[in-house]
Amino acid sequence: VVLLFKSDPDDTRGWTAELARRLPGVEVRTWPDVGDPADIEFCVGWAFPPGSLRGFPNLKGLQSLGAGVDHVFRDPDLPEALPIARIVDPYMTEDMTQWVMLNVLRFHKQDPDYRRLQAEGRWDELPPPSWRDRRVGVMGLGELGGHALERLRYFGYKLAGWSRTKKRIDRVETFAGEEGLRPFLARTDILVVLLPLTPETEDLLNRERLSRLPKGAFVINAGRGRLLVDEDLIAMLDSGHLGGAALDVFRQEPLAADHAFWKHPKVVITPHVSALTRAETAVPQIVENYRRALAGEPLLHPVDRRRRY
Amino acid sequence: VVLLFKSDPDDTRGWTAELARRLPGVEVRTWPDVGDPADIEFCVGWAFPPGSLRGFPNLKGLQSLGAGVDHVFRDPDLPEALPIARIVDPYMTEDMTQWVMLNVLRFHKQDPDYRRLQAEGRWDELPPPSWRDRRVGVMGLGELGGHALERLRYFGYKLAGWSRTKKRIDRVETFAGEEGLRPFLARTDILVVLLPLTPETEDLLNRERLSRLPKGAFVINAGRGRLLVDEDLIAMLDSGHLGGAALDVFRQEPLAADHAFWKHPKVVITPHVSALTRAETAVPQIVENYRRALAGEPLLHPVDRRRRY
Repeated sequence: VVLLFKSDPDDTRGWTAELARRLPGVEVRTWPDVGDPADIEFCVGWAFPPGSLRGFPNLKGLQSLGAGVDHVFRDPDLPEALPIARIVDPYMTEDMTQWVMLNVLRFHKQDPDYRRLQAEGRWDELPPPSWRDRRVGVMGLGELGGHALERLRYFGYKLAGWSRTKKRIDRVETFAGEEGLRPFLARTDILVVLLPLTPETEDLLNRERLSRLPKGAFVINAGRGRLLVDEDLIAMLDSGHLGGAALDVFRQEPLAADHAFWKHPKVVITPHVSALTRAETAVPQIVENYRRALAGEPLLHPVDRRRRY
Repeated sequence: VVLLFKSDPDDTRGWTAELARRLPGVEVRTWPDVGDPADIEFCVGWAFPPGSLRGFPNLKGLQSLGAGVDHVFRDPDLPEALPIARIVDPYMTEDMTQWVMLNVLRFHKQDPDYRRLQAEGRWDELPPPSWRDRRVGVMGLGELGGHALERLRYFGYKLAGWSRTKKRIDRVETFAGEEGLRPFLARTDILVVLLPLTPETEDLLNRERLSRLPKGAFVINAGRGRLLVDEDLIAMLDSGHLGGAALDVFRQEPLAADHAFWKHPKVVITPHVSALTRAETAVPQIVENYRRALAGEPLLHPVDRRRRY
């Protein structure tokens, strides 16, 4: 049996070594060195080119390397019955929560203003917002959003969450669906976006919706770039309605050199590094899913094809 | 009876209003409008000028408005038997922990590097340190240091603490005294300084001690400026031994316009705003201490004159 791996060329070696170590007797091939397509029984990775999976007649499962699987559904020829799993890696979840906390605290503590004052050599004390009154809202209440909210709770903020279907979370005001969006946004000073990208969530944060946030609100996006309409975000930052944005994901990655985000004084950019999936912590569930796929059992962390996440 | 209040002119009104509201029948005067010095029985505030307290013959207690009381001991004429209390305000403690967390996450997540890369328009992924391996060390294990360590524990870091006398804290490696300083510093990637300023801690972080930190370590100071030797910190940053510093407190405040910290690319400055003492949360313990001082009872959060904190 053969497992085919595909990821960024940078970090392929660590992954394939770890997979080979934990799957003795299994041949691990690395994209694009596929060999005979009929050999491939399990695929692990990121953004297989459209049409490629259809070409493996004996493929029994696809393991996405990330929490998001929108890259999988870009393939119009995705084999219909192929079981698909995503990664739920506790290392990666904590890593994401730390990126979220950095950016919530950055905006809560007025850090961009203090960086600007330092650059100007000015010792000015700004009126400080109270952590007791700070309203933080998280969109997406799955593994990542749920974990971020758990951590945010220790900080004493007023918390809310929004998801497609209603969820109950202790000490978090929850909203759901289209009708919950307006009241959720209207009470959110710091918005954390951790939604999956699906046909329903694409362009969700457009001008109309961003304008529902209170004046001076901040937007933090570590979900996917296509959740947010770039021009609308920039317009709302420029008009002064929004106070700032921290972005880790973009409609096109790497972000184009001439994109307005790069030099925008209210935009904080990280290059899709908010949370890393680590071979050492993620490989055990991949190994288990490999076993399950070959045995025809349901995968761990399966993807719902209808919902696309 | 008369209570005398002194603070920054900016925020005097909120405090005196809150004190008057909670102490009906007590006259609240505001520095420098002292009136008859014999009227003053209780002082609340910050940095009464040296010699001034000695001039109040009926003074029964002094309540410092901050967690630190080094400003009190700058007065060589401090009345010898005067009971002194400091504030332990849960609002302020949480505020400080949030400032500490912002800066620990800033350095842990390589944010200064990513800010520089954004300014250069460069999409570069840096090799990310793991939160599992990150060694954070806190100096000062009182109210503030203990609270910060409690919060840091959720983030999965390897934690250590240093204090004058040995303390035990769950899941934190503790060090004490001069002999504990070297091993504590040698294992600390991110150093958080929350010590009180006393004759023993002044200039504690000099070149010799900073050089014990591992190469690339970060220093976060929200204790007092005089804990740290400015020139030595700058030398260690310039030599590349230290990776960065986040400073909220300075030897002279406001920080002099020509101080090298302002423009140093590895120094992050906030103007002594890490944590705020709020009238609404702090006044109840001041009211209680007022009552105790007049009744001759021991104060809440008393200051040890020998230790000077």
